[in-house]
This record gives sequence, C-alpha cells and structure tokens, in this order.
Amino acid sequence: MNKGLLIIVSGPSGAGKGTVLKEVFDEIESLRYSVSVTTRKPREGEKEGESYFFKSLEEFEDMIERDEFLEYQPVFGNYYGTPKEYVERLRTAGYDVVLEIDVKGAMSVKERVSDAVLIFLTPESKEILRSRLINRKTESAAELEKRVGESIRELETVEKYEYVVVNDTIERCADDIIAIINAEKRKVGRNAEFINRLLERR
Amino acid sequence: MNKGLLIIVSGPSGAGKGTVLKEVFDEIESLRYSVSVTTRKPREGEKEGESYFFKSLEEFEDMIERDEFLEYQPVFGNYYGTPKEYVERLRTAGYDVVLEIDVKGAMSVKERVSDAVLIFLTPESKEILRSRLINRKTESAAELEKRVGESIRELETVEKYEYVVVNDTIERCADDIIAIINAEKRKVGRNAEFINRLLERR
Repeated sequence: MNKGLLIIVSGPSGAGKGTVLKEVFDEIESLRYSVSVTTRKPREGEKEGESYFFKSLEEFEDMIERDEFLEYQPVFGNYYGTPKEYVERLRTAGYDVVLEIDVKGAMSVKERVSDAVLIFLTPESKEILRSRLINRKTESAAELEKRVGESIRELETVEKYEYVVVNDTIERCADDIIAIINAEKRKVGRNAEFINRLLERR
Repeated sequence: MNKGLLIIVSGPSGAGKGTVLKEVFDEIESLRYSVSVTTRKPREGEKEGESYFFKSLEEFEDMIERDEFLEYQPVFGNYYGTPKEYVERLRTAGYDVVLEIDVKGAMSVKERVSDAVLIFLTPESKEILRSRLINRKTESAAELEKRVGESIRELETVEKYEYVVVNDTIERCADDIIAIINAEKRKVGRNAEFINRLLERR
C-alpha cells in the first residue's frame, strides 16, 4: 500500500473551503482531517484525541522545542498546532490527510514535508470575494473592511502554492481537487513499492 | 485562455496505449494528436498535413539541422519526427497535444519542453505483459521473444517519467490519465494569466 498524501488547502475566508472539502470528502474515502493540538480548555462534549489533543501551555512549548509540530500558531491567546507524528501515522496507514491552514502554516509544513500537495482555493475575482464576505452580514462595517483586507492579502500568496483551483461552482471546484488528489497518487515517486514489484527487484 | 498541455504517453507494446487513449480522447475535447513529419512516401489516401507532413530526406535533414524537431527517429529506413512549431501552434490555440512516443523520444521532448507532462502506461506485471503479447499470436516464436525482451526493457525506463498509470482496466486507466490532465491544468505555473487578472496586476 502506498503512503497517503498530505494535502494542504488554503484560501481566503469567503473562498468556500469548507463546503468544497465536504464534497471532496464524500467522494474520496481515504481522506482524513488531522486532529490539532491546542492549549485551550476543552468545551462541553469535546473529546481528547477526537476534537483536539488538549495540552497545557508548558506541554505545548515542550512540543515546539522538540520540533513535534508541522505548524503551529496562536489564535486568541491560545496555541493550535498540527502534530507531526499523528499525521505521519495516518499517512503510513494509507490515509490522505487534509490540512486546512493559512499560508504561514502551509509554508511551515512544506519545509518539513517536501512531498506535501499545496492547493490554493480562490474565488474568481476580488470583487466576488468582497461580495461574498459582505453577504454574510454578520459583522460591523469596520470588522468587514478588516476581513476583506485580510482576505485580499491572503489572495496575494497564491503563487506560493502548486495548484490553484477556482471556486466558481462547488461541484467543478470539488472535481478539480479530486483530480489533483488522484493525479498525485500516480506520481512515480509515490509508487516505489509498485515499481520495485513491477521490475521484480526483490 | 491558457496554453494547452504537451502530454507524452509511453509504455511497452502490450500496455494498451491505443485503446486507453481512445477513451481519454472521447472525454476531453481539447486533445489533439500531433501530425508527424516523415520521409516515407505517401500511401493511397494519405493527405499532406493530415496523415503526415511528407518531406524529402534532404528537407528532413535540414529540419534536423535547424533544430525544428521535438524528437525524431529512423523506422525501417525512413525518418519520422515531431515538428516543434506545429505542436507549439496547437498549444497556443489552446489544444492539449498528445505524443505517443518511446522513452528516447520522450527524453528528447522533455529537454526541449520543460513543462511537458510525462506519463508511463504499464501493465500490472511482467507476466501480464508477456501473456498479452503472446495472445496476439501474430508473430513467430523468435519474433515474439524479441518483442517481449524489448517490452520488458522499455518497462525498466518507468522511473524517467513523472506519472505511472497501471492499465488493469481500460476505464480506470483512462480515468487516471484524465485526472492527470485536469490536475496539470490547475498548476499555478500554467495559470499566470488568471492569476494576474485575479490580483488585478494590469
């Protein structure tokens, strides 16, 4: 069995990552989200090892020290990180692991996992991005402006990725991501075991 | 519009390239075979510029001299070559050009077109390759042994390619090639025009 892929999906808020990935997960059985490590307290109903791995700040800092994260970052005073060993274990068991992270996280992972697949999900234009964010109407004008600014700055990082997928319709976008996953599985470098068997090397 | 892909498909005789590619062509409208240049005489019904571009040996050698081929080789005393400019024109018009060539040709093209997509089509094992060739029953035992030997030597070149696709069933194999084509179209480097528009660079 081949090792699973590590797939990073980034894209500005308003690009529709969640909806599209749900479609992709429905199609490809081997996909799994990673479970993050966090220093925030468990909420009602959250289970250790399912929702998150819950750690103290000290434990988290020890893990940073030992380079046990593919990436980590602070969010609202707590730390969140992707545990290297956990992801590796899933991949070795044949699962394709999906990380939905920002460009900073993506670059950190790429540095540590050279065969990671980097996909950038984008709306068709800045105008469409802006109007999607406005239509949410959940924020004040000032908050909205800030979020639009952030999203547009995130858009500017697209060239750091290997693939760009446009979210014009959910279905077409999901199909593109599915194609990328299936194509990556056919890369010669990911099929060493098959090739050794084919060439009767052992 | 993005420039079309240049897709090279290689694989031993008996891997079923023709049948699989027919399926792929039925699915993807933008695919085109290149038209080869040849020094052999036109046969009944063959049309200049459709079946082949027919050239004299002297013209062909002039083209070699001017580096006008992506690859060329002698077959039974005649030359056959893939004309660089013709392929380039198809790609600029948005067509994805498919070349069904051997490893020597593939390496020659790769040297000249760095973004060519190299796909190797293989049966599941040497045994299956051998039995497919035997079942053809069109050759003498000596010819067959020679062809099996050649096919197996061709198999050994799989690692010079970017993608390996196993022809266990025609449909699954065609689906893999379609996925590769669709994924390659999403590569960031092939979408410069879209990205410039997205980022409103002009």
